[in-house]
Amino acid sequence: MRVALLNPNTSAFVTDRMVEAAQKIAPPNVSIVGYTAQTGPEIVGTRAENGIAAANALELGSAIGDTAHAIVLGISTDAGLHALREVLHIPVVGVLQAGVLTACQLGERIGLITLGSRMLPLYQEQISAYGLAGKMHAWAAPDIAGAYQKDVEDGVHRAIADQAARMAIDSNLDVIVVAGAVLAGCRTWLERRVPVPVVDSLEAAVHQALGLAASKYPKQTIGSFSTPPARKLTGEFPSLRAVLAREHK
Amino acid sequence: MRVALLNPNTSAFVTDRMVEAAQKIAPPNVSIVGYTAQTGPEIVGTRAENGIAAANALELGSAIGDTAHAIVLGISTDAGLHALREVLHIPVVGVLQAGVLTACQLGERIGLITLGSRMLPLYQEQISAYGLAGKMHAWAAPDIAGAYQKDVEDGVHRAIADQAARMAIDSNLDVIVVAGAVLAGCRTWLERRVPVPVVDSLEAAVHQALGLAASKYPKQTIGSFSTPPARKLTGEFPSLRAVLAREHK
Amino acid sequence: MRVALLNPNTSAFVTDRMVEAAQKIAPPNVSIVGYTAQTGPEIVGTRAENGIAAANALELGSAIGDTAHAIVLGISTDAGLHALREVLHIPVVGVLQAGVLTACQLGERIGLITLGSRMLPLYQEQISAYGLAGKMHAWAAPDIAGAYQKDVEDGVHRAIADQAARMAIDSNLDVIVVAGAVLAGCRTWLERRVPVPVVDSLEAAVHQALGLAASKYPKQTIGSFSTPPARKLTGEFPSLRAVLAREHK
Amino acid sequence: MRVALLNPNTSAFVTDRMVEAAQKIAPPNVSIVGYTAQTGPEIVGTRAENGIAAANALELGSAIGDTAHAIVLGISTDAGLHALREVLHIPVVGVLQAGVLTACQLGERIGLITLGSRMLPLYQEQISAYGLAGKMHAWAAPDIAGAYQKDVEDGVHRAIADQAARMAIDSNLDVIVVAGAVLAGCRTWLERRVPVPVVDSLEAAVHQALGLAASKYPKQTIGSFSTPPARKLTGEFPSLRAVLAREHK
Amino acid sequence: MRVALLNPNTSAFVTDRMVEAAQKIAPPNVSIVGYTAQTGPEIVGTRAENGIAAANALELGSAIGDTAHAIVLGISTDAGLHALREVLHIPVVGVLQAGVLTACQLGERIGLITLGSRMLPLYQEQISAYGLAGKMHAWAAPDIAGAYQKDVEDGVHRAIADQAARMAIDSNLDVIVVAGAVLAGCRTWLERRVPVPVVDSLEAAVHQALGLAASKYPKQTIGSFSTPPARKLTGEFPSLRAVLAREHK
Amino acid sequence: MRVALLNPNTSAFVTDRMVEAAQKIAPPNVSIVGYTAQTGPEIVGTRAENGIAAANALELGSAIGDTAHAIVLGISTDAGLHALREVLHIPVVGVLQAGVLTACQLGERIGLITLGSRMLPLYQEQISAYGLAGKMHAWAAPDIAGAYQKDVEDGVHRAIADQAARMAIDSNLDVIVVAGAVLAGCRTWLERRVPVPVVDSLEAAVHQALGLAASKYPKQTIGSFSTPPARKLTGEFPSLRAVLAREHK
Repeated sequence: MRVALLNPNTSAFVTDRMVEAAQKIAPPNVSIVGYTAQTGPEIVGTRAENGIAAANALELGSAIGDTAHAIVLGISTDAGLHALREVLHIPVVGVLQAGVLTACQLGERIGLITLGSRMLPLYQEQISAYGLAGKMHAWAAPDIAGAYQKDVEDGVHRAIADQAARMAIDSNLDVIVVAGAVLAGCRTWLERRVPVPVVDSLEAAVHQALGLAASKYPKQTIGSFSTPPARKLTGEFPSLRAVLAREHK
Repeated sequence: MRVALLNPNTSAFVTDRMVEAAQKIAPPNVSIVGYTAQTGPEIVGTRAENGIAAANALELGSAIGDTAHAIVLGISTDAGLHALREVLHIPVVGVLQAGVLTACQLGERIGLITLGSRMLPLYQEQISAYGLAGKMHAWAAPDIAGAYQKDVEDGVHRAIADQAARMAIDSNLDVIVVAGAVLAGCRTWLERRVPVPVVDSLEAAVHQALGLAASKYPKQTIGSFSTPPARKLTGEFPSLRAVLAREHK
Repeated sequence: MRVALLNPNTSAFVTDRMVEAAQKIAPPNVSIVGYTAQTGPEIVGTRAENGIAAANALELGSAIGDTAHAIVLGISTDAGLHALREVLHIPVVGVLQAGVLTACQLGERIGLITLGSRMLPLYQEQISAYGLAGKMHAWAAPDIAGAYQKDVEDGVHRAIADQAARMAIDSNLDVIVVAGAVLAGCRTWLERRVPVPVVDSLEAAVHQALGLAASKYPKQTIGSFSTPPARKLTGEFPSLRAVLAREHK
Repeated sequence: MRVALLNPNTSAFVTDRMVEAAQKIAPPNVSIVGYTAQTGPEIVGTRAENGIAAANALELGSAIGDTAHAIVLGISTDAGLHALREVLHIPVVGVLQAGVLTACQLGERIGLITLGSRMLPLYQEQISAYGLAGKMHAWAAPDIAGAYQKDVEDGVHRAIADQAARMAIDSNLDVIVVAGAVLAGCRTWLERRVPVPVVDSLEAAVHQALGLAASKYPKQTIGSFSTPPARKLTGEFPSLRAVLAREHK
Repeated sequence: MRVALLNPNTSAFVTDRMVEAAQKIAPPNVSIVGYTAQTGPEIVGTRAENGIAAANALELGSAIGDTAHAIVLGISTDAGLHALREVLHIPVVGVLQAGVLTACQLGERIGLITLGSRMLPLYQEQISAYGLAGKMHAWAAPDIAGAYQKDVEDGVHRAIADQAARMAIDSNLDVIVVAGAVLAGCRTWLERRVPVPVVDSLEAAVHQALGLAASKYPKQTIGSFSTPPARKLTGEFPSLRAVLAREHK
Repeated sequence: MRVALLNPNTSAFVTDRMVEAAQKIAPPNVSIVGYTAQTGPEIVGTRAENGIAAANALELGSAIGDTAHAIVLGISTDAGLHALREVLHIPVVGVLQAGVLTACQLGERIGLITLGSRMLPLYQEQISAYGLAGKMHAWAAPDIAGAYQKDVEDGVHRAIADQAARMAIDSNLDVIVVAGAVLAGCRTWLERRVPVPVVDSLEAAVHQALGLAASKYPKQTIGSFSTPPARKLTGEFPSLRAVLAREHK
């Protein structure tokens, strides 16, 4: 089985890191293949870049088409998720949605931790859109210098863990979701320092993708997620353009 | 990997049917082992029986303890789900919750179909408790004579499919969740008659269980899902009694 | 008039205490009769025990049948409340629901205080199920050593009152609901120390029960609370079994 | 015990009818005393009149002061309810709120029927304000000629009952609340024609008032329902003016 | 264009202040005409006075009739707003609603600041009624001595600004709404001290009124905001009485 | 005053139509300047195209920068609205949000009509994100052949009006919002056929833009709408790239 991991940012380093983390989680017969945007934001840190990432995600996914068995959309805001589900015939899993849905099965009071306070409202808005705001009882988004470096020292890890642990105790949490591509693989250093289970969003997404791929759900033939009639797009995004141009049936 | 499928009803026929359906879905290295309640309701059809089933689920799960890698709670109301998550150290998946969470990844407007109008409010209340009522846009619970028989004729299938298809079109649905143990395995005859993907709750639950088991999440050490201090239970439910009596660190 | 007070725990001491408190509240022509579970948890302190208590409540209520004019379900989680309403023909009042509904008539911003932080989420989940989460503006569940003793010293009372008063002021509350059987009768020592009215859940439940009993509402003949058709239950819970086995009409 | 029944309309006929219905419900030792507004709307049928009724309710309640043990606010929109709770020291019960809170204890799916479609949105807005919109599953407000006459024929009763019964079945209701002063006492002709219990709002209000009066809750000393500091009001509403002018400790 | 600014309090000083602030905001061709209640509360500080103010607002608005092009209801609780919209044919804008709706277009996380903690719950209830409670992330209602004086010193301004700034930072706000007639015109001294835009409710209301007036929306002919059939009101409120007495068509 | 009207589709015809309609509404001293995307969807009809339109809106808005006094985002899904508010210093108004916020001031029960059922869920999701789903009581999105033609016949208008009128009566609406660029200017033929006021989203947006522009709100210096630190974007979207590249302060 082949799972495409889309990074709609241009940071190949982040793609590699996510692929590595995902491959560790996946069973041996699953190959995780990373795709990185060629242009766009290096790493999404603003609402504007998130908008571009959504368009990039569509282009990346359209290029892959249905050559994979499932797609993991590897951006922690799930930018472009619904639109990808519309144009593709294979399941598309968003890391944020996957993380929270998985957490719902581990307890009732959920917290979320990510890096960078500026982006926190985007997570909150997205989780509200998923109808799950009522399950969230704490949010943390520390601005920690150096947390995005390649070789993060244990001090950074400890600072994140301290905040996560404090949040768990203060807000009486049952489970914590960790969002943010650079935190993929965090359970090895985070879980032992926190009194509740930690859901690594990427790990959750890989498992959700495997389950959905195995189920081979057919595509809708009605509604806003069904394959659109042929549409004429001009300009950039050639793969998306080709996908949308298809006459179907 | 070993997944225990608990049926807190006494209907071994239903257990067998669910195990068979689940085993078909599971990868070869996963064995699904069914457990049936020895006493209690034959099949839950009332709020009262649902209460007894919740207690039975606790007893069945306590007897299994952590000998399996995950538990699928095979009753479509998810009776006893939270309490099982409290007393056990392995993941426990409810079919109803799993079905709806999976559906959330296939579209935005979800419908649910089950058999028997009397029980519908229990599903609605449970899905509200999961915080997901806002995602539900249609409900159907036809009272169809013969639908619970061993050898259900195609006429029954067609009646169910007709209602599901109508619901999908009238309510502009993206996906339909099917709840009810006797409908396990329904996709073979239902999906081709309905214009949106159909989530078989049991199938969704098996995949969710495999994902959670693979992730080996640790248990909470704080909060209402952490292992309780030693508690004294008397009377029935010997396995639960034993589990609750344990002193832990 | 005769009101049955069900304690689905095995702690007769708690039953006695509740009966005594309830009898004080009731008018002279009302007799409060206590019923204590013979087996099960001594006092519910976990989700698992709460599940057993729900089953016990059903059995206790079924044994009483319609020999009383109303039932007060004397467990502060309201375990088994809906199912009891289904199987019985007399009104059944849950102390938690009664407490909050009564508080709704005394002000708009409600707080709840109980003993023991582990159980707090169960109250929160139940009040959400009642659709009243939006009215709740503060929660307190102090873990106070000695609070469950027979002879509680004034120091314990003061600790509880201090927390209640602080909560009222900090959260701008209009009224506080007190949940927890051991706190029945609390108004004598609590109210004078708190700047808002205090609703003793048991007291509220007794008044609600008297009102419902006086109104002699008929039972539903449709829906999930109507008398079920004859159902076959096996094993424990002989009274419930007998009630469910009845053919009706 | 003395319960004041305030009619902030000028229709003495409606007051009499409500007093008669309430007196029938109340125990022998309770006297229901009606108060009718001297000026204002004859019977509230618009948002504007409802605003005047709210002011009238304040004046009527202020005139009574604390000479009664409880007040039932006898207007089905509960106009002026919160403000009355602020200025008085005795419990004030709104018929609409009382009706819905009582219904919450009889089932989960509630419907409401009243007369006159123009006023329905006011009930809906008020029930939303009580946080209980989620419990409501059907609304009916037939415009039936002659329904407000003194001697209503059985044909009118049957028309109302037919609509209530249809609503109960179509929306799978558990209980119906009847709002509207002219429908006070409706259970005698309505209940036998409807498959679910019918809550007569006025009856519910009387029982809630008796319970609250018996509990003798003290008044808040903080917050928006506490006795205000002395306020200077000019013009009409002499009783309210006097109440607000009081210096308090 | 002529905008009537209604002050349903008797404090002409407040009317003048609001008119002055509003006139500064309005384009040259717009005249703002203030109307002050002749009787009633000097300035609303309680729920009871708010009820009287609602009635006064109706009377003031009825006296003006449709001689203005729009009405700004100049009381920060929006008392009487819906009823005014019912009886008049010109647009009626509430300052609180206008402030929050405007803020919705400047950011996602809104806070509100006003003076006086006693009235805060009324704002909260009203904003809930507008369906916008989910947008509000912080509330402040400092009790500042001297804040209501004619000549407020800079110390008072600084105290208010400090609290607003702290609220913005602590609650990660995007925008702050300022409610309260005495704070009209606050942006000149507040905005430079706060890191987010400040919506002066009155200013927002003037702009909303101008937009609505320009659009010349017709009045509903169905529903609870349509012109009522002739109604008989007695007693005070002669202008409202005259408006309601009109036969239409 | 200068208002930029952005059309993130490539259909210049639609831009012209919107500009014409907007210019009619605006006061004489306001000039409406239209901007049309050079590439992208001709007219958004799918989730994928909506994603591209959001990116286009960002690019168009960045090119304009702060040369206008306000921006009206002329796409009825409000695609890219939040991101534009982040990168620009002038107010940005979305037609959908403006339409619904304006409707909130005309009544309580709102309906929305647009053309094309496929896009309806996007409006519903967006209005939920605005926190206003609770105000919406009816939705219509007829698929009417020829409705998008340049010269639409009266038959099409009548079909739309019929559906709007039916929706108003059946759902007891107070006001109807019309969404969809091709329906700009609809009030001339729609309003007389419908019993409630009709809000033309574009008209509402123009008025909201004028009000916001007049108020000259400063930009946030904290939070997710504040000007971002310099960001590196590559590839397309040169104007956005330039805007994001700016070092500030």
